[in-house]
Amino acid sequence: MAQKVKPRTMPGFMELLPSEQILFNKMYDTIREVYESFGFLPLDTPVLELADVLLAKAGGETEKQIYRFTKGDTDMAMRFDLTVPLARYVAQHSGELTFPFKRYQMSKVYRGERPQKGRFREFYQCDIDIIGSDELPLIYDAEIPAVIYNVFKRLDFGKFTVRLNNRKVLNGFFDSLGLGENVTDILRIIDKIDKIGSEKVLAELGELGVTSEAAEKILSFITAEGSTDDKLAYLKGLDIDNPAFKEGVSELEQTAENMRMFGIEEDYFTIDLTIARGLDYYTGTVYETVLDDYRSLGSICSGGRYDDLTGYYTNRKMPGIGISIGLTRLFSQLKEAGIIKAECGSIARVLVAPMDCNMSYTLKVASMLRNAGIPTEVYYADKGFKHKMKFADKLGIPYVAVIGSSEEESGSVSVKNMATGEQVTVPLENMAEEIKKGDK
Amino acid sequence: MAQKVKPRTMPGFMELLPSEQILFNKMYDTIREVYESFGFLPLDTPVLELADVLLAKAGGETEKQIYRFTKGDTDMAMRFDLTVPLARYVAQHSGELTFPFKRYQMSKVYRGERPQKGRFREFYQCDIDIIGSDELPLIYDAEIPAVIYNVFKRLDFGKFTVRLNNRKVLNGFFDSLGLGENVTDILRIIDKIDKIGSEKVLAELGELGVTSEAAEKILSFITAEGSTDDKLAYLKGLDIDNPAFKEGVSELEQTAENMRMFGIEEDYFTIDLTIARGLDYYTGTVYETVLDDYRSLGSICSGGRYDDLTGYYTNRKMPGIGISIGLTRLFSQLKEAGIIKAECGSIARVLVAPMDCNMSYTLKVASMLRNAGIPTEVYYADKGFKHKMKFADKLGIPYVAVIGSSEEESGSVSVKNMATGEQVTVPLENMAEEIKKGDK
Repeated sequence: MAQKVKPRTMPGFMELLPSEQILFNKMYDTIREVYESFGFLPLDTPVLELADVLLAKAGGETEKQIYRFTKGDTDMAMRFDLTVPLARYVAQHSGELTFPFKRYQMSKVYRGERPQKGRFREFYQCDIDIIGSDELPLIYDAEIPAVIYNVFKRLDFGKFTVRLNNRKVLNGFFDSLGLGENVTDILRIIDKIDKIGSEKVLAELGELGVTSEAAEKILSFITAEGSTDDKLAYLKGLDIDNPAFKEGVSELEQTAENMRMFGIEEDYFTIDLTIARGLDYYTGTVYETVLDDYRSLGSICSGGRYDDLTGYYTNRKMPGIGISIGLTRLFSQLKEAGIIKAECGSIARVLVAPMDCNMSYTLKVASMLRNAGIPTEVYYADKGFKHKMKFADKLGIPYVAVIGSSEEESGSVSVKNMATGEQVTVPLENMAEEIKKGDK
Repeated sequence: MAQKVKPRTMPGFMELLPSEQILFNKMYDTIREVYESFGFLPLDTPVLELADVLLAKAGGETEKQIYRFTKGDTDMAMRFDLTVPLARYVAQHSGELTFPFKRYQMSKVYRGERPQKGRFREFYQCDIDIIGSDELPLIYDAEIPAVIYNVFKRLDFGKFTVRLNNRKVLNGFFDSLGLGENVTDILRIIDKIDKIGSEKVLAELGELGVTSEAAEKILSFITAEGSTDDKLAYLKGLDIDNPAFKEGVSELEQTAENMRMFGIEEDYFTIDLTIARGLDYYTGTVYETVLDDYRSLGSICSGGRYDDLTGYYTNRKMPGIGISIGLTRLFSQLKEAGIIKAECGSIARVLVAPMDCNMSYTLKVASMLRNAGIPTEVYYADKGFKHKMKFADKLGIPYVAVIGSSEEESGSVSVKNMATGEQVTVPLENMAEEIKKGDK
């Protein structure tokens, strides 16, 4: 045989052991279930697309990071996000879709970045978007955070906060100060306030040519405190006579009110006037989400409203709103922070352990359990009782169905609860029920 | 704005409309559920791997078809199946896995073939494999078809047959005829019998140098008819004194018996002595699966037992057994043959249609439905009753929850069954139950 190749993966490509993968899949399935509960439709676009299609909009960093290659005469690339494929899909199939078009896609995307801690070259994005034809009602600006609220409530990583802002408020505010041209730079500086403090922010704004009067206004604007209603009152109290600003404040107020109607608890969302997100893209409501006890993780879920999704492909105007959970990064961070922990190395809820009975009865028991919806493993190897218990214990299988000749004769099984050590002998017809008791 | 890019995908990359994607996902979820019911563990390896790792074993067609490229100094490639990544994974993590290691992976793989009807460049494979350390009990040769039996029973595409053979039987038989060297060529010729007929097969065997006596024996061997037990009796009656042959017949007999114990109905499997599968890989039991009413689709699910999964990566001997469903191809074929049909364009089971009541009550109703596990869509736009019904009808949403001010006042909703046209007004607490009635 030829020389052995060292089995290995590339840096930046997460690959999990089974116990971790089970945990990952639980998170994935929960997110999908909540997305579907709101009626989002599944989409599964190709990983590989034509380079000219995928890069219609891109530039700069994206172009550098993309995995792009030719095969035959075809210049192709791996998708680097799920938004561009969505835009292409909607433009391509607009005649066959019903609008508003609500879709989710939870798939891997690829970025050939220099690998570093916390950065992945292959990672899952879990996106939802709602695309309107020509217009999209404001109510959806509250539905999106309602979905996210339900996702993170179900995932149960502790208290979180959806931070809310509106790009029109920002644009209008800076316009009113005569700084409309500098919005990008100003927001970049503002974004650092947690790291560098107010004084340095004021200094950097000064360097940009912002008057100290304006800089003070900006500072008091972005550091406004209080409840959602306090902040809305503050914004109105600024009395800024700018149409964009007024529209933004009104949208923010209405969206906060709608979010309450969607059942989002008051302390799970807040208005945060420092949030801007990708400046060339979002045009209205923007969101970030933080875990209150782990703010250092940064935003675990971000998005917003945009006016024109499909502009690179079609003249038809398609506004939309969306949000994305970077699942691979989130999973990796939560694991590292000890917030989640892989505990169970098995999918099976029960291990069928035949002791001295024939295989026919054993397989009948296993089949009955599976038909009752209980994932079931059978220990086939001819080993002693202790071996079998150790196997179940090692993999975290919560129940063992012990079968000896006496069980077979009486048409029963002995169900051992591995957590309590308790063992009860039950007739076949009660076996599934006994095991399901342990589920919450 | 710059010139528009035509939105399009590449040939050979399946992309579905939402109604089709829903149908596809149902199939995917069913397969996954059955795989998990047998305790198979999830695996999700990277799409991109180092070229030297992925191509350790490959050659010929595979190398030509693979999507391979360099970025920076790294020579990488997209996986072309799920078996090589499994081999790499098991070799890499053998110390952290519990054996027998049962894993499923249902992911996309890539082959840059010339696109033609029924061929895909990106397609899902749904694989299960059971890997032993040093040895793997024969009972698993029956567990694999038991999984497949349950999958296709649940998928409900009509009657199917799992065809069973054993490579040792084939090798031993040809060895006994002194044709051990020619097995590959002979099997290639035999494989064409359905297309070219017995006489041409005999002629081609002659050209290969097979004596007419041996050729007649081969022909009667591969055309042996009858039940599973008939064929086993036929094989034993050949009285061939070859150790491999005897071992193969014994394995075949035991596996058939085990399959019965797993509950596989007698007419859902058969011994088919013409099945060989990839000759350089499989070493024992081999499988194919056909839909009885659509034999022209070919084998929809194939696999078998192999002695040495990880030989290219490690000296440790890891025998295994596995099977694969090519889901993308199967879906596409079933759709084309009219066996499956996309009917529902919505994930939602109910459309909440507010008529003249406030949004707060509407969203409360929607939230209650979602919490009861019912995917729910809300019709927000201010349109008439007919519009709303038409929307539900178009998307195939089975129920509409109509809410007017009288419903709001009495704390109820009017649930309309779109199939029967029946409408009943029920209090909020009975609403979910009324809608779940329609599920089977």
